[in-house]
Amino acid sequence: MTTKWCRFQAGDRVSYGMIEDDNVVAIDGTPWGSHSVSSNRHALSAVKLLVPTVPLTFFCVGINYREHIIASAKRKGVEPKFPQRPDIGYRANNALCAHDDPIVKPRDAGEMFQYEGELVAVIGKLARNVSADKALDYVFGWTIGNDVSERTWQRNDRTNWRAKNCDTFKPMGPWIVTGLNYREMTTVIRLNGEEVERFATANMIHDVETYIAEVSKYCTLYPGDVIWMGTEGAPRNMKPGDVCEIEITGIGTLRNKVIAA
Amino acid sequence: MTTKWCRFQAGDRVSYGMIEDDNVVAIDGTPWGSHSVSSNRHALSAVKLLVPTVPLTFFCVGINYREHIIASAKRKGVEPKFPQRPDIGYRANNALCAHDDPIVKPRDAGEMFQYEGELVAVIGKLARNVSADKALDYVFGWTIGNDVSERTWQRNDRTNWRAKNCDTFKPMGPWIVTGLNYREMTTVIRLNGEEVERFATANMIHDVETYIAEVSKYCTLYPGDVIWMGTEGAPRNMKPGDVCEIEITGIGTLRNKVIAA
Repeated sequence: MTTKWCRFQAGDRVSYGMIEDDNVVAIDGTPWGSHSVSSNRHALSAVKLLVPTVPLTFFCVGINYREHIIASAKRKGVEPKFPQRPDIGYRANNALCAHDDPIVKPRDAGEMFQYEGELVAVIGKLARNVSADKALDYVFGWTIGNDVSERTWQRNDRTNWRAKNCDTFKPMGPWIVTGLNYREMTTVIRLNGEEVERFATANMIHDVETYIAEVSKYCTLYPGDVIWMGTEGAPRNMKPGDVCEIEITGIGTLRNKVIAA
Repeated sequence: MTTKWCRFQAGDRVSYGMIEDDNVVAIDGTPWGSHSVSSNRHALSAVKLLVPTVPLTFFCVGINYREHIIASAKRKGVEPKFPQRPDIGYRANNALCAHDDPIVKPRDAGEMFQYEGELVAVIGKLARNVSADKALDYVFGWTIGNDVSERTWQRNDRTNWRAKNCDTFKPMGPWIVTGLNYREMTTVIRLNGEEVERFATANMIHDVETYIAEVSKYCTLYPGDVIWMGTEGAPRNMKPGDVCEIEITGIGTLRNKVIAA
């Protein structure tokens, strides 16, 4: 059985909620913690969806699919190097934005302004020293991320701060779905309605279980934390006016329009 | 006038508080937001100090003092490279721990397990497109950080995840002090009581104002966010049983003992 959880704003009030057909029912508490169903019920079309979680730590795998690594090595004119170990990276919460929020292209960003469609694992229980065979018990559910990247900055900045973490560069949502098997998912990316990428989501170099087991040896994962699992392929450029959609089987579609700053 | 703000636990209750002599007075709200002074007053010795803020985004400058860059280049056998631009990096909230909490050395960490004493700027107001001459108006106050680092992992991990972000690798505290001039501070680091480093805190390559101005062009800084400003010198190794103290003028002393996992 699957359940769809969201975070939303109705009037001034921010709540987590459960989506049932075209309605959302607010809960008191968090989806992964103790909670009770409230009497607040809204039409989904009448509320503003927010990012479904604001993580304590925002983990991101970075490179985890073979074709994407080959394409980015080609762009840089170097030999592709595949990750030997499940080293985890980070993104910044300031960059998060929700489904249907605009991706704002900074005035000084260049032409190579690109999407990266990613599966996101949302942690549901405090995870420390978790074994790979138990790792999925610690995943509450799944959502979708768009790891928007400015490639010139990615090449030249000492860290990925501008390249990956400007405000609105990390759309996440539209909601979290529980009870899915990520090994059966397909990720489809569309730019202005045209399909530009399609890949088997589970075709990762290091899988979700491996990452959770390795990271939790050293770093505690907390409920609401996210792990963005990387993208496949050679992304195209986006320009103001473009609409990027990322659809993953069983979760839904994360859609964001690019606008100029 | 300076004020000392802390975050603490008394019984089951976590609050921010103001320190007056040897007492702490709890507030309702946050130090940087609207708040009111409560009637809860405790002896400072009777409460558990927590990290004084849990940032939405944990910014860290990384390399910002000349001697430290020269020393780490020497360790790696390469030419020192000084940062041309104020590129900002990140650390992970899972790694935070408080004053007097143990720094836990992982079982598989090597000998080159080192402190880095750093000034921390705590943001007090939402900062976006802030000019350098107004930047300090957005700093609520100052605290101290210890950017604990495992150098073998730092050299070999693709990201700094294990090297810098294992649980307890980011002691921060003991409290936040407002109304100080960071240009007049001295940072002193002691290992088991012996002074091992002393530097003029403001002797940075890129100063606090420059970082806030540059970062806020692209990334919104939120109240409670922190910017760790980097360290000077060539740190020594720490082993289980060692006590590391970082003292910064006007703020106080952050003290943590290393223990074995």
